[in-house]
Amino acid sequence: MVVLNKIYTRTGDKGDTALSDGSRVAKHDPRVEAYGTVDELNATLGLCRLHAADQLAARLSVIQNDLFDLGADLARPNMEADDQAGYPVLRIIQSQVERLEQEIDEMNADLQPLRSFILPGGSVLASHLHLSRTVARRAERCATELARNGDVNQAAVRYLNRLSDWLFVAARQANGGGTEDVLWVPGASR
Amino acid sequence: MVVLNKIYTRTGDKGDTALSDGSRVAKHDPRVEAYGTVDELNATLGLCRLHAADQLAARLSVIQNDLFDLGADLARPNMEADDQAGYPVLRIIQSQVERLEQEIDEMNADLQPLRSFILPGGSVLASHLHLSRTVARRAERCATELARNGDVNQAAVRYLNRLSDWLFVAARQANGGGTEDVLWVPGASR
Amino acid sequence: MVVLNKIYTRTGDKGDTALSDGSRVAKHDPRVEAYGTVDELNATLGLCRLHAADQLAARLSVIQNDLFDLGADLARPNMEADDQAGYPVLRIIQSQVERLEQEIDEMNADLQPLRSFILPGGSVLASHLHLSRTVARRAERCATELARNGDVNQAAVRYLNRLSDWLFVAARQANGGGTEDVLWVPGASR
Ligand code: B12
Ligand code: B12
Ligand code: B12
Ligand SMILES: C[C@H]1O[C@@H](n2cnc3c(N)ncnc32)[C@H](O)[C@@H]1O
Ligand SMILES: C[C@H]1O[C@@H](n2cnc3c(N)ncnc32)[C@H](O)[C@@H]1O
Ligand SMILES: C[C@H]1O[C@@H](n2cnc3c(N)ncnc32)[C@H](O)[C@@H]1O
Ligand SMILES: [Mg+2]
Ligand SMILES: [Mg+2]
Ligand SMILES: [Mg+2]
Repeated sequence: MVVLNKIYTRTGDKGDTALSDGSRVAKHDPRVEAYGTVDELNATLGLCRLHAADQLAARLSVIQNDLFDLGADLARPNMEADDQAGYPVLRIIQSQVERLEQEIDEMNADLQPLRSFILPGGSVLASHLHLSRTVARRAERCATELARNGDVNQAAVRYLNRLSDWLFVAARQANGGGTEDVLWVPGASR
Repeated sequence: MVVLNKIYTRTGDKGDTALSDGSRVAKHDPRVEAYGTVDELNATLGLCRLHAADQLAARLSVIQNDLFDLGADLARPNMEADDQAGYPVLRIIQSQVERLEQEIDEMNADLQPLRSFILPGGSVLASHLHLSRTVARRAERCATELARNGDVNQAAVRYLNRLSDWLFVAARQANGGGTEDVLWVPGASR
Repeated sequence: MVVLNKIYTRTGDKGDTALSDGSRVAKHDPRVEAYGTVDELNATLGLCRLHAADQLAARLSVIQNDLFDLGADLARPNMEADDQAGYPVLRIIQSQVERLEQEIDEMNADLQPLRSFILPGGSVLASHLHLSRTVARRAERCATELARNGDVNQAAVRYLNRLSDWLFVAARQANGGGTEDVLWVPGASR
């Protein structure tokens, strides 16, 4: 179990830190970069939640909770040794990805197809969802970079990929079901 | 023409994706990193727009639109083959950079020169413009990194360079024409 | 002394720029990346300040000022030649780190220890402090990456490490002294 009490321990002052399994790596290690970016994504979702109500707020909280599962997943290397841990290691599973897909399908059902990109913005909620969308994609890029070493749960990568699409569709819903979205006009100011 | 309807296609679940010309690269490829960061910059401008009025809001929308021209530009490699595309390829052009310069000159005209840096913040609008300013600079760093391979439109790099200066001057205007800006006092808390 | 008047100089249009000592490097050089990210962190603190009052607002301003000392520090390479500069070179010193530690101790004193991570969010202020926390950690990762070359002031790295802990504790205070924080429930949605 995680315990947070003293908060600063000074152990990381030299620039290295511990992964979940206790192994030490540089703070700029791609693995730390990946779960650190997931943490940043999670913080932007905290801002979205300020402007969301009811079902959307609840769903955002579930996603925030998932992102700690995802962080725990990324923070634990050596996947192939999971069964030797002596306890069930926490990793993202496909059903979490599928829940996002079902919610996307539901939110997307009554949206008109787009014939151009939309300018990120609109309502306060939509604007924040767009920011999270782009940070989810940044986190995904970190995860795919890390995945080059072969030691990343593919369901975690899928989760991040789906999450940015979830956020796109949620943003459209937050702009009057997409009716208030402003389309990109290629080369309009040239 | 871009079409967005189904949104999630699962084609990127393995960590690679398509550029505009259909070629496939890793999601953490410097080119994807560059237009992904421009997308994030665009999202922060969506937040600025929430607090901007009249001329500034209109100008921010034009810049948001430009940034999709810029994204399309970065997303299409092999500049030297543009004339073989069979249609006019969309790239940032110098007049878009010059429009930013003219707007900077106009917004800067009545501002007092500064004898120190200013603490980012102040009004809600100024605070958001400062955030966008720093993300524009992050996007510029991605673009210059990509440009090492020689396959980046230099006008796109100039646009990003000018945009962070535009945002700085706009932020000063949003703080009472700079009169409410708080200056850095070197070493004040030492 | 820094002077900001014309703002855009076009000198950086080719993708390189000047450090404090006049030497030129690429804009994507790890050193520029590091102080550029500190600038972004500073901008997020400007957003926090919008929602902070009294002592916390004052402390945030002091930290924003410190971050320019830190930026000046990172922007000046060749630490070993500081005594040949002919003037006192500005660098972060240990007392600035210790002030953060004292403030953490004070803010942490009446908080309950945590038995799990907390979902970033809650009050508007807490939500923004969490975002800054994660950006401080990103800046720290840039600093430790740069520090591999041996030419980084260790007190600057310590400052960034402590700052993210400061922001965590401040965020808890901003959620009713931690009583309104929502805990991560591992695997809750699986
Ligand atoms: C990875 C990590 C992070 C990551 C990712 C976390 C995530 N899940 O997304 C991120 C970057 C988000 C993070 C952030 C922070 N962290 Co952190 N983090 C860690 C680290 C390395 C691992 C935690 C973890 O995720 N474990 C995975 C979970 C699932 O493991 P678990 O809870 O232990 O449960 C497993 C096992 O224990 C087992 N198990 C559980 N119960 C039982 C029971 C039995 C009987 C058995 C057999 C097994 C068992 O099964 C579980 C499933 O696998 C720990 C250090 C460490 N090595 O533990 C620090 C640590 C907890 N973090 C710390 C700190 C300070 C923070 C931050 C405050 C830093 C900051 N300033 O931002 C924030 C707080 C964020 C928040 N919102 O609350 C400190 C706490 C210090 C203290 N004592 O006060 C620690 C201890 C590191 C340190 N030494 O400094 N962190
Ligand atoms: C690059 C890109 C992005 C980039 C940059 C885009 C930019 N311009 O800034 C970014 C990162 C922003 C992005 C974001 C998203 N994207 Co995208 N993107 C693409 C990609 C690879 C190219 C699009 C592009 O910019 N084209 C350049 C423009 C100018 O080209 P064009 O509109 O086709 O027009 C040119 C030509 O077609 C030609 N032309 C036009 N008309 C005509 C007519 C004739 C007769 C002729 C001869 C020629 C011609 O001339 C034009 C000028 O060169 C496409 C896939 C693809 N290969 O097309 C996906 C794609 C459109 N994106 C997709 C998605 C899902 C998204 C996101 C929702 C992802 C997310 N979750 O965030 C967001 C939406 C963002 C938003 N705000 O709306 C999906 C859509 C799937 C679907 N069918 O629903 C696609 C198809 C990728 C995929 N297979 O998954 N994207
Ligand atoms: C590093 C840097 C940054 C960094 C970090 C700064 C920091 N401290 O955190 C960041 C990224 C934040 C930054 C941002 C910007 N910057 Co800048 N920055 C610089 C740079 C390279 C060094 C500035 C610095 O930090 N100096 C360190 C301080 C401590 O030095 P100092 O004030 O000169 O004082 C020292 C010495 O001068 C000496 N000293 C002082 N007084 C005296 C007196 C005597 C008698 C003696 C002997 C010695 C002495 O002792 C001091 C302590 O060491 C300068 C260019 C340059 N080489 O000067 C550009 C520069 C100042 N920046 C510039 C610009 C435009 C900006 C931005 C507007 C860019 C943007 N669009 O975002 C922003 C503004 C940010 C803000 N909030 O105000 C331009 C200004 C152009 C102009 N004339 O208008 C410059 C000149 C670069 C350029 N050529 O384009 N910047
Ligand atoms: C919509 C388009 O965005 C690009 N793309 C796919 N994944 C990412 C990511 N994580 N970050 C940035 N861009 C991405 C691809 O080019 C895709 O076709
Ligand atoms: C104002 C100062 O900021 C630095 N600089 C120039 N371009 C960038 C960028 N994209 N990101 C971060 N810092 C930059 C240079 O050091 C310049 O002199
Ligand atoms: C709380 C946990 O966060 C990780 N950690 C430590 N420093 C950073 C940073 N700058 N960025 C991201 N993660 C970090 C370590 O794994 C630590 O144990
Ligand atoms: Mg995707
Ligand atoms: Mg510049
Ligand atoms: Mg730390």
